[in-house]
Amino acid sequence: MTQEVTVRPVLVRELLGEALREERTAQGRTLREISQQARVSLGYLSEIERGQKEASSELLGSICGALGVPQSSVFRSLSDKLVMHENVTQLPVRPVARVAA
Amino acid sequence: MTQEVTVRPVLVRELLGEALREERTAQGRTLREISQQARVSLGYLSEIERGQKEASSELLGSICGALGVPQSSVFRSLSDKLVMHENVTQLPVRPVARVAA
Repeated sequence: MTQEVTVRPVLVRELLGEALREERTAQGRTLREISQQARVSLGYLSEIERGQKEASSELLGSICGALGVPQSSVFRSLSDKLVMHENVTQLPVRPVARVAA
Repeated sequence: MTQEVTVRPVLVRELLGEALREERTAQGRTLREISQQARVSLGYLSEIERGQKEASSELLGSICGALGVPQSSVFRSLSDKLVMHENVTQLPVRPVARVAA
């Protein structure tokens, strides 16, 4: 018996949030610290990092400023992440065999 | 007499719009064509290309799909554009001499 596998297209805000979170944690900084410096609420920043909210261009500029990284490097990282996802979704998908209970 | 030069920080949506427009015109395709395929109004697509509106992640996926380009390449192009802007704003700014009328 085979199972249908659907590959959900990846959303830019999810990988962008991932890239921002990676940068922040690599610097050993807290959500609170960056949210205060970027003048965005902690909850909103957290939602952006989790890919649940789209950040406006102005806010992205503030967050990158607070992180002290050029926006180009965040979008370069996003592009690299997108490449990996695009390669995965281009592979022929072999249905996963369901293990009998 | 010197003139004060303020370098406005560049907004991601402006360079992203530029990248999308460049891709579309390089393909010789019209706003109408892409807007119909991406299921977005012509006016809205035009505003996105001119950097006046932020495109949601879902819409970006549709636009890239209509253009037939991977999202990674659009964001790679955005990153390259950002680098150029970042380099310009890091240069020491020499005030432009005002030409006497």
